[in-house]
Amino acid sequence: MIKTPTTTFEQSAEQLAKSLATNDIAAIAMVFHPLGTTETLEQLERLNTIDRALAYRTLPKDRAVEVFERLDASLQADLVAGLQEKDVSEVFAELSPDDRVALLDELPASVANRLILGLDERQRALTSTVLGYPQGAVGRYMSPEFVITHPEMSVGETLERVRAQLDDAESVYTIMVTDAGRCLKGVVSLRDLMRAEPVERVQDIMKKPISVEATSDVEEAARYCADAKVLVLPIVDAEDRLVGILTVDDALQVLEDAESEDAARSGGTEPLRRPYLATPVRSIVRARVVWLLVLALGATLTVQVIGAFEATLEAQVVLSLFIPLLIGTGGNTGNQAATTITRALALGDVRPRDVFKVFVREVRVGALLGLLLGTLGFVIAGLAFEVSIGLVIGLTLLGVCTMAASIGGLMPLLGKAVRADPAVFSNPFISTFVDAAGLIIYFLIATSVLGL
Amino acid sequence: MIKTPTTTFEQSAEQLAKSLATNDIAAIAMVFHPLGTTETLEQLERLNTIDRALAYRTLPKDRAVEVFERLDASLQADLVAGLQEKDVSEVFAELSPDDRVALLDELPASVANRLILGLDERQRALTSTVLGYPQGAVGRYMSPEFVITHPEMSVGETLERVRAQLDDAESVYTIMVTDAGRCLKGVVSLRDLMRAEPVERVQDIMKKPISVEATSDVEEAARYCADAKVLVLPIVDAEDRLVGILTVDDALQVLEDAESEDAARSGGTEPLRRPYLATPVRSIVRARVVWLLVLALGATLTVQVIGAFEATLEAQVVLSLFIPLLIGTGGNTGNQAATTITRALALGDVRPRDVFKVFVREVRVGALLGLLLGTLGFVIAGLAFEVSIGLVIGLTLLGVCTMAASIGGLMPLLGKAVRADPAVFSNPFISTFVDAAGLIIYFLIATSVLGL
Repeated sequence: MIKTPTTTFEQSAEQLAKSLATNDIAAIAMVFHPLGTTETLEQLERLNTIDRALAYRTLPKDRAVEVFERLDASLQADLVAGLQEKDVSEVFAELSPDDRVALLDELPASVANRLILGLDERQRALTSTVLGYPQGAVGRYMSPEFVITHPEMSVGETLERVRAQLDDAESVYTIMVTDAGRCLKGVVSLRDLMRAEPVERVQDIMKKPISVEATSDVEEAARYCADAKVLVLPIVDAEDRLVGILTVDDALQVLEDAESEDAARSGGTEPLRRPYLATPVRSIVRARVVWLLVLALGATLTVQVIGAFEATLEAQVVLSLFIPLLIGTGGNTGNQAATTITRALALGDVRPRDVFKVFVREVRVGALLGLLLGTLGFVIAGLAFEVSIGLVIGLTLLGVCTMAASIGGLMPLLGKAVRADPAVFSNPFISTFVDAAGLIIYFLIATSVLGL
Repeated sequence: MIKTPTTTFEQSAEQLAKSLATNDIAAIAMVFHPLGTTETLEQLERLNTIDRALAYRTLPKDRAVEVFERLDASLQADLVAGLQEKDVSEVFAELSPDDRVALLDELPASVANRLILGLDERQRALTSTVLGYPQGAVGRYMSPEFVITHPEMSVGETLERVRAQLDDAESVYTIMVTDAGRCLKGVVSLRDLMRAEPVERVQDIMKKPISVEATSDVEEAARYCADAKVLVLPIVDAEDRLVGILTVDDALQVLEDAESEDAARSGGTEPLRRPYLATPVRSIVRARVVWLLVLALGATLTVQVIGAFEATLEAQVVLSLFIPLLIGTGGNTGNQAATTITRALALGDVRPRDVFKVFVREVRVGALLGLLLGTLGFVIAGLAFEVSIGLVIGLTLLGVCTMAASIGGLMPLLGKAVRADPAVFSNPFISTFVDAAGLIIYFLIATSVLGL
């Protein structure tokens, strides 16, 4: 489907494995020779740390820099350990300041300091601008190299400035317009500059800028960049002075990483820092075990609830048959609500202040779902067992669905309010609180309907 | 944090609600007057269908087109119903062909046909090119308006072509290089063109193109565009002839929609077609009820398994205390594995052919997790109840975690192999099969250890 002018991915992977096994440097180089940067990356990401360093060293110089730039920072740090000091400083100098900072975060302090000292003065200054912002702030991900013009400048002069910075600027397709005090006044696209007459003033064709403060959360800024469909998002300081730009490809990378993290956490595991096949088994275990323990400890609540109703169960063992089904349905209903609200929060469709609206909606949704499932449960369980059991199951489903949907819908909002990740915050609550509350509803309804 | 030169979101929303309640058109227009396109969109998305049409009509013409372009196709279709025929055809003519096709898919056939007939000939031809590809294919999302040059052309001539198409082309920052037969030969960036001498040939500065076939899955193509960090991805037909381009902002939109869909489905609900607060309660119920029913019906398997061991439970009611904890832990372990593998598949870190590698890894991960949790379970349950119960719980946790991780890891791969969505495919399997299998493991271990 997707066209690459080469052998298939699997063929290359096989050849590469064979060449690595025999330590055949020339053969390794041959495998990479016909591949593009993206394919080279995909192959490298699947190798273990030692093989990756070995394979990387066979790449020609310019390709090596391109590949290095696009590796995850954690894999870059692995590579640095396997390369010669000289190779590293050369590649390091080629990175853009934001990529450099991401790598520095991954390296031991001694290596990091040596690398910074190896930079020329200008690059060192640019790097430390970016380094100055806290982790997770968009300032860390911005590029401090961009083209500036001024409102009273002419289109022709501005185009000259663009031409002078074709090599250095991170993006030349959106030009920042600032006043004498570096305050952001507008943006103008290269397309509009080319369309205008050279004597026109920039202020007559520039657009109102949207911008983000450098201390803002990077994920929020990246989503803003994506939603606004701009190639470049200006980053300003508290006084509205331009300090950098976030390009759409960096925004995309941020969103993809955030998506990986969210997907992992909402599945109850820490995100892996390396591609799956390149992650040691013990790291995978480490990423999962804490969550599993927390959830298992939370689940001891259900042991206690059932223990409290042990007499009821002894009188009617048949009640234990429905435990997994009932708490499963509660969990599913809660997850549905939490998933919907988490996503709506991420997209800005729902805000924390909408908490009451969300609650009312989810109570209604949960009650309707409970009515449908409860009626069905009443009929099926009533036929298969007896009418009184059917009544218990039906009423419990109604109660559990209403409770689960409303709790599930509120949890992400509560998570957001206490500044936790909504997806992460919801999961343990739903699988412990909703389970335990569901069991209590079940046994209370059972004891009163069955007269136990 | 994010700077907008206006009143806060909440203030605008409040004012808007007030003005809509009193049908005060002038006041509504006032609310939108200071807002940018993004803020206007955010406000409109929160309204119900009728209020949205009313509010939209107060926007000035050029702003209206901009806003319309960026609305979801389903909301566009809602709007069309509330607007005058003339307004609609004007806006429709302004849309780019790919956006036009997305809207057409949402409209009743009669409205769609009338709108197509209202287009001029060139736009009608461009629209039908895009309409010719199946839904879900990248051809549906591409733009057929782009700048073309040829390898033997000079840089100066190419820049002339760019200037001539500044108004029409979807992107002018990446220029397609084709031969006389429209076959894609390379791409050249406007930056490189500006850097080169006007007499240089395009073939000396063009880059090797990466491209995607028009019938390819759009999500795959969008991710490819994002991974390759290109502003524009060329789309070709089976004979490598250029037919369109996918721009990075359209790719971003595709990825965001796909993310919403995946998040919804892996949470066991159909994605909502409209923003949460703009979706009627009965639509939310409809999006959730089918999944809930399927999962509840699947869970009747657990009723049968427990029913088969009812005698065991009657002899030892204490065993029922641990049912939620054990199947919960199994479900969590399975979900962790499924989440990790689903994500690794999406990122291309794991391929369906790696199934055996994944299985071996997940068995090891599951066994290790089971060993840790099982030991803990043995100690705690042994102390709280008796040693034999502790042994049952410990061994069951070992067995359940190993089983759940391996099944959970395989499911997304199996889903991918049968061309189902890995996230959707895994969920019902894990919550029914893993639950039932876990219960069987539990009762078998219990009967043999306790000698029942």
